[in-house]
Amino acid sequence: MSIHAWSPVQYYGTDGKAPFVLICEHAAKHIPAEYKGLGLDSETQISHAAWDIGALNVAMRLSQALDAPLVAGGVSRLVYDLNRPLEAPDSMPEQSEVFSIPGNRNLSQAQREERFDLVHEPFHYAVKQLIDLQSKRLQTGPIVITIHSFTPIYRGAQRDVELGFLYHKNARLSEALQAVEVERNQYAAALNEPYDADDGVTYSLRRHAEDLGLDTTMIEVRNDLIRTEEQAKVVADHLSQSILRAQAIVQAERKGET
Amino acid sequence: MSIHAWSPVQYYGTDGKAPFVLICEHAAKHIPAEYKGLGLDSETQISHAAWDIGALNVAMRLSQALDAPLVAGGVSRLVYDLNRPLEAPDSMPEQSEVFSIPGNRNLSQAQREERFDLVHEPFHYAVKQLIDLQSKRLQTGPIVITIHSFTPIYRGAQRDVELGFLYHKNARLSEALQAVEVERNQYAAALNEPYDADDGVTYSLRRHAEDLGLDTTMIEVRNDLIRTEEQAKVVADHLSQSILRAQAIVQAERKGET
Repeated sequence: MSIHAWSPVQYYGTDGKAPFVLICEHAAKHIPAEYKGLGLDSETQISHAAWDIGALNVAMRLSQALDAPLVAGGVSRLVYDLNRPLEAPDSMPEQSEVFSIPGNRNLSQAQREERFDLVHEPFHYAVKQLIDLQSKRLQTGPIVITIHSFTPIYRGAQRDVELGFLYHKNARLSEALQAVEVERNQYAAALNEPYDADDGVTYSLRRHAEDLGLDTTMIEVRNDLIRTEEQAKVVADHLSQSILRAQAIVQAERKGET
Repeated sequence: MSIHAWSPVQYYGTDGKAPFVLICEHAAKHIPAEYKGLGLDSETQISHAAWDIGALNVAMRLSQALDAPLVAGGVSRLVYDLNRPLEAPDSMPEQSEVFSIPGNRNLSQAQREERFDLVHEPFHYAVKQLIDLQSKRLQTGPIVITIHSFTPIYRGAQRDVELGFLYHKNARLSEALQAVEVERNQYAAALNEPYDADDGVTYSLRRHAEDLGLDTTMIEVRNDLIRTEEQAKVVADHLSQSILRAQAIVQAERKGET
């Protein structure tokens, strides 16, 4: 039968026992048949415009290494960008960095709301459920980490940064991670690179962590480092060690405050 | 990587334009890795205890034939039965008709609530979203139809009924369907067979339709009629015609009332 299932949300490792919840909004490149490929050629449908290449592999490996639950998006960000509110101009972009998106041109408000209702709402509902669940299990709020990837070249310019730790107002975990990375000296790491909260990229992080008083960071990995599953494993295993060390720093700081 | 995605909810044909929403709670036999097969052997994991055999194929074909959106469950009813509230004894059954379910034995209230939060809540949230969406699109409440299947033999007794139309309080659509089936005289059809609302099987139907004043029925198909995809197509194509005729009857009745 030429009818296919799709889901706005995917769970992994929901029995994870560590005080973390992982989120990967741009995990999938899938465009449900209903959207007729958004008028894109097949090359564009698998490009970075459609998803964060490698990010899900990093997130899945982190879920295993940390023993932490993961919640991931199930459809391409070109259908709806789960890290954006409805009113953001790029929640259903007409134009990516290099591609025009015919299927997103001149959407009516009703069409925009349909995608929001079908994709955004169930996803963020499930994220909230998972964070609440982990809080109940551990009797303490978990650390929330979102996993993303970025292109090595953007608008013609090479990006030298390899790992970025982004935040909006709660810098604690990001700064601890940056300090650990500087000490480990294996990757070119930076705070709020290759872009920052002013670019509107911290929506999930604010909604599910900062606004609730939870520690959090958005990890950005340059996607040439995670092109294969094996490469993603190497980076994720590195990050899991850094995350555990950063968690210890944050815990010590919190103790010092009380 | 030995980590696998699962989702509590699957959409199909969300651009369907007809005034129907289809629901298939017991569509999937999947037991997420986290639940370790619930301690069941592989034969039990694919039995009727785990899912409604053939129901998803009927529902998918109905979605196509009627041009109606469909929302289906993504995990086995043995993990959580999406057609039951948390407090129902068989929402996470320790015992099916013939099998004992080791992974459901002696669950704590916290464990029961975890499954409810992860499986039931996002599924029923998505169902509500889809019904609201179809209402907004059509400027009228859709007809809600849930699709199930049952075994030809239950506790040793042969069931002669082939199609059942079940309801709780709003009998309108079920009675219209029954009248159409009697006239068409191809299947042995009956109202509130092979079980009825007193058996606690009309949870979704009440929650998403009757309680909102929407017309609705729960269609039960005997699963020996829908063992293959081709058989499911035959039954679904038959049902789609009956549904359209029943819809016309219900519409005429509603007109007569105003």
